[in-house]
Amino acid sequence: MIVPIHLLNKTDIKYDITIDNLPHLEINNKVAIITNETIAPLHLDTLLNHLKAPSVSVVTIKDGEEYKNMQTIEYILDHLFQDRLDRKSTLIALGGGVIGDMTGFCASLYQRGIEFIQIPTTLLSQVDASVGGKTGINNQYGKNLVGAFYQPSAVYIDPKFLETLPPREFAAGVAEVIKMAVMFDKEFFNYIKTNDINEEEVLKTMIKRSVELKAEVVNQDEKEAGIRAVLNYGHTFAHVIENETKYTDYLHGEAVAIGMVMANELAVEIGLLSKAEAIEVEALLASYDLPTQYKIKDVDAFYEHFFLDKKSANNSIKFILPNSTIGTHTIESNIDESIVKKVLERFV
Amino acid sequence: MIVPIHLLNKTDIKYDITIDNLPHLEINNKVAIITNETIAPLHLDTLLNHLKAPSVSVVTIKDGEEYKNMQTIEYILDHLFQDRLDRKSTLIALGGGVIGDMTGFCASLYQRGIEFIQIPTTLLSQVDASVGGKTGINNQYGKNLVGAFYQPSAVYIDPKFLETLPPREFAAGVAEVIKMAVMFDKEFFNYIKTNDINEEEVLKTMIKRSVELKAEVVNQDEKEAGIRAVLNYGHTFAHVIENETKYTDYLHGEAVAIGMVMANELAVEIGLLSKAEAIEVEALLASYDLPTQYKIKDVDAFYEHFFLDKKSANNSIKFILPNSTIGTHTIESNIDESIVKKVLERFV
Repeated sequence: MIVPIHLLNKTDIKYDITIDNLPHLEINNKVAIITNETIAPLHLDTLLNHLKAPSVSVVTIKDGEEYKNMQTIEYILDHLFQDRLDRKSTLIALGGGVIGDMTGFCASLYQRGIEFIQIPTTLLSQVDASVGGKTGINNQYGKNLVGAFYQPSAVYIDPKFLETLPPREFAAGVAEVIKMAVMFDKEFFNYIKTNDINEEEVLKTMIKRSVELKAEVVNQDEKEAGIRAVLNYGHTFAHVIENETKYTDYLHGEAVAIGMVMANELAVEIGLLSKAEAIEVEALLASYDLPTQYKIKDVDAFYEHFFLDKKSANNSIKFILPNSTIGTHTIESNIDESIVKKVLERFV
Repeated sequence: MIVPIHLLNKTDIKYDITIDNLPHLEINNKVAIITNETIAPLHLDTLLNHLKAPSVSVVTIKDGEEYKNMQTIEYILDHLFQDRLDRKSTLIALGGGVIGDMTGFCASLYQRGIEFIQIPTTLLSQVDASVGGKTGINNQYGKNLVGAFYQPSAVYIDPKFLETLPPREFAAGVAEVIKMAVMFDKEFFNYIKTNDINEEEVLKTMIKRSVELKAEVVNQDEKEAGIRAVLNYGHTFAHVIENETKYTDYLHGEAVAIGMVMANELAVEIGLLSKAEAIEVEALLASYDLPTQYKIKDVDAFYEHFFLDKKSANNSIKFILPNSTIGTHTIESNIDESIVKKVLERFV
């Protein structure tokens, strides 16, 4: 299964996302694989067995979002300079979203940009992070605040890598799949509801459809000037939850699951979505053991937190909501504070 | 005078380079001006008097290439976060090439990219650095090794800023003007020879034609996959000279002047250029008090140094040379080591 990426505003960027067994890769220049201490023992050998290149170096970093910072970027770049990679060299990201984001960022920076290949090993990164070219790091002011839009030259999604993924992380990936369905495709939503993800072909189809939907959005709007913001459905709330819980209680996908429930509650409140459909989404999330409830301690503080998010340009909050039914979307930026707080009160 | 930039492979990038008195700028969002300790006392007031924005902050950094590093980038970014610039904010680069390169790099990084405006205050940055979107920093491995291709939203070139420029720096800028003429436009070369740069209109015309020629190249080849490499005429040699003299003896444009003389000598040696034309270029450079001689201490070491340059992908050295006459160019990557060394011997 191949999903082509072709950004409409950049005629020089075209690549494929391949959903299949990892193919044999032959690269005619130096290669550096960026991976982490968890993934390397599990999957590095597989990659090395599939890779032919005149020279291959491996940079293994520590595992965890807390290492997604400028120090790690400088550490990786240092390795690349020491190994004398040149402008024709290629980086390969082997890991989840953190590895993908940092490898892409390093590729964008090294000598002003070299090629990189994504081999995502988590469901979340397979369906989300590996598509769209957002790269970057966190800093003391927040997540993903420094980075680049930089597209890979190829993405290889092999569902076999998911066999070693902890169930909680797998479910967190499913949350983003459900997000895509709720925003863009009711038929796909029904497919998820009625099929068993444990069957290999079903899993592949779900990954493919998610990637396809995201690719459609990114091709139109790489830099999130418009429709790409729709991918942030659930995220406005999720970012506050993640921040309040210091990124320890919930995986990103889990926070997004709660965020979608909150967004839907708001959509119901302003008459966009039926209560029945909101419950349908919540039930599907819950069927994957995803959290759907969160205890807000302080509604005012939670609300204020929206404004710290980088997506709140010009001090207005954009809420991404279903627009009448599952499979449709709207961006609402003028919802009254009192209405938002009324909805938040239900989570107290 | 307006030179439009329109990259052929990016339909979403279009902006103008304006060569004229600085216009009044009205910006409807937060602005941060990045400048340095030398330029701020000379020109910051002028800019502030021409600028209207809801909020303007100024980040003043130290003056000099030695501050063109990741620490300074982090220092600037820190200011931007503290001033809570958002995705719609604008940076303004007020200064020479170092300021432009770092401001553009920060703009590319901040929240994955915000707008920036270039107001170059040196001749070199007016004719060269402000056109083309190369941004970045130096590190222990070399110059401009970390960065991004990132285009400004506008460039304002006001020759009045040059009135405070030291004569040596002015001449260094002329070297790049002559470079453009030798590579692309014999008529322009003759114009430079026969007109007085001290006349305002002549200066403007020289700036405009240089910018125009560079824009033509950049529009076709933003990322230096092909013809853009021609802009490195003289630079292959200049980088070694700068490196050997630890960036202290020569300004960049001065090293490029010597580099052009060396390149022409090589072009004469392999039968591309006539000796008469090589002398004509050297004489024009000398008429601006630009250096045209350099004492090579060790020919072998000088030659080896070519290979450390990042432009030597795959271990071949590309020499950019005039291709039969002034105003034409070629890229030669297979010149025999002995021929190159024979030419270098003449500078011992």
